[in-house]
Amino acid sequence: MSVYTPVSEAQLAGWLRHYSVGELLECEPIKSGIENTNYFVTTAQGRYVLTLFERLPAEELPFYLNLMAHLARHGIPCPAPIANLSDQYLGALNGKPAALVTRLPGRSLEEPDLAHCEELGALLARLHLAGRSYSAYLENPRGPKWWRLAAREVMPFLDAGRKNLLDKELAFQAAQRFPDLPRGPVHADLFRDNALFDGARLSGVIDFYFAGVDCLLYDLAVCANDWCLRKDSSLEGERARALVSSYHHVRPFTSLEAKAWPAMLRAAALRFWLSRLYDFHLPRPGMLVHAHDPEHFRRVLESRIAAEAPWIA
Amino acid sequence: MSVYTPVSEAQLAGWLRHYSVGELLECEPIKSGIENTNYFVTTAQGRYVLTLFERLPAEELPFYLNLMAHLARHGIPCPAPIANLSDQYLGALNGKPAALVTRLPGRSLEEPDLAHCEELGALLARLHLAGRSYSAYLENPRGPKWWRLAAREVMPFLDAGRKNLLDKELAFQAAQRFPDLPRGPVHADLFRDNALFDGARLSGVIDFYFAGVDCLLYDLAVCANDWCLRKDSSLEGERARALVSSYHHVRPFTSLEAKAWPAMLRAAALRFWLSRLYDFHLPRPGMLVHAHDPEHFRRVLESRIAAEAPWIA
Repeated sequence: MSVYTPVSEAQLAGWLRHYSVGELLECEPIKSGIENTNYFVTTAQGRYVLTLFERLPAEELPFYLNLMAHLARHGIPCPAPIANLSDQYLGALNGKPAALVTRLPGRSLEEPDLAHCEELGALLARLHLAGRSYSAYLENPRGPKWWRLAAREVMPFLDAGRKNLLDKELAFQAAQRFPDLPRGPVHADLFRDNALFDGARLSGVIDFYFAGVDCLLYDLAVCANDWCLRKDSSLEGERARALVSSYHHVRPFTSLEAKAWPAMLRAAALRFWLSRLYDFHLPRPGMLVHAHDPEHFRRVLESRIAAEAPWIA
Repeated sequence: MSVYTPVSEAQLAGWLRHYSVGELLECEPIKSGIENTNYFVTTAQGRYVLTLFERLPAEELPFYLNLMAHLARHGIPCPAPIANLSDQYLGALNGKPAALVTRLPGRSLEEPDLAHCEELGALLARLHLAGRSYSAYLENPRGPKWWRLAAREVMPFLDAGRKNLLDKELAFQAAQRFPDLPRGPVHADLFRDNALFDGARLSGVIDFYFAGVDCLLYDLAVCANDWCLRKDSSLEGERARALVSSYHHVRPFTSLEAKAWPAMLRAAALRFWLSRLYDFHLPRPGMLVHAHDPEHFRRVLESRIAAEAPWIA
């Protein structure tokens, strides 16, 4: 479970008096998070999520909260931070930076179908278009610079085959011209468990705490590598096409993006292979959750390297 | 009906391409408005209200839209303006200033009970507290200055008794020390038809286009004069107490406010008597709706003058 910093009902009720959301009716710890302490909060006014930030540097939190606020006011169904009576999104509770955001309806899906992938593609494109007018900047914290740092640290734990794969992929990625692609704020972690569906409708995109500014196409590659997988880690063509073409319908790809797609799928696989290697071999002290198996994304990466250039619009 | 400026589906679908709300699925004119042209709009993303502004000066619109945005991000259930891809709340459609806001669930009530009045009081107090950090300023457009202008214009249409009532009430109000009361943005028109309930829960406060900065207590008086009436226009004690004490529980009255309450109820009755006299005797050209009967608020005003000082916390 993920409650690193317990909050009592009395503490929360007192803290909520600095907000305009009415009296506390109920609060319930959320067990599925990894990085932060989260509670579901119900007040006289509505349903919220309380987050106590455990990992992120305090100076980076405004980037995330303001990004969510920006997207929400453009109609993107993401958690909307609630401002307190001092007109701030960020407060403090039990010594931790803390924020209250709206709780979105719906549930995540383990086995999305074509229609879900279409919904996702269209929403991601709308999110990217809305994000274009967001002016704050934070480099994707898990971008190419971080790959090289993380690779150096995990290298000692790898066997010769994996070392070789990692070395070669870093060299391949270093030769790509990603700076020429359209950039903007990206979610960068839009796995199935970070999307909520209410029936066929995508009712929420959650957990923006890996967001940053990067190539927009990278976001789509992260999605494809999770939403459109066959059991053998290859891309399933129909779902991948649904995802990509519904995205393209809203934000048409540039020709450079179409060319970059195969390399971008590899970049997205590399990023998660690296972070899972890192969490597996170098867990942070006090980490309460079992690390994901790094091998999954090694197989995804090898599958992307081996594949014919996958289809793009 | 209230569609002064028709909008075709094709026009709207094109206009919505400047937003991140997905494709247009449906639009339907709203017949109940008086001042503006309104449509219910459903897109792939959600449900909205489109407003084309017909009356308000364009330079005042940001006050209203930013106020709604401010309150919405404090968790107040009011229509949240949606920003377009240029990051603006205010656009233009068919030559009129236009905005898209979220459509709230629920329906208005003709006969609110005690619990509804309690909900209203608590929400109004939260709205006032949240509004305190809103920095823009627009004087209540239907405040004391306007009373005197409107009185001069309607006076020729009144018989001696009504002239006398109006003269005396203006003189009485001029002697009140309202500037000493807590002030801030007020809705100023929170009649039953501007509040939506979803079961027992107040799910929406709508139509902020008479809002302005004024005494907070004035807002509560406007509510009391509509939500807590007996058939004979007197205040019904139980509902009025429910409204006032639930407000007081969230934002306690100052002692000056408690003293000002009887005069404030009269001020709120005067304002609507005047505007209804004005619309009845001096309708604007092209006004498509029958004016309300001004006599209703004359009776409310006389009842407030005659009453023992009504109870306040």
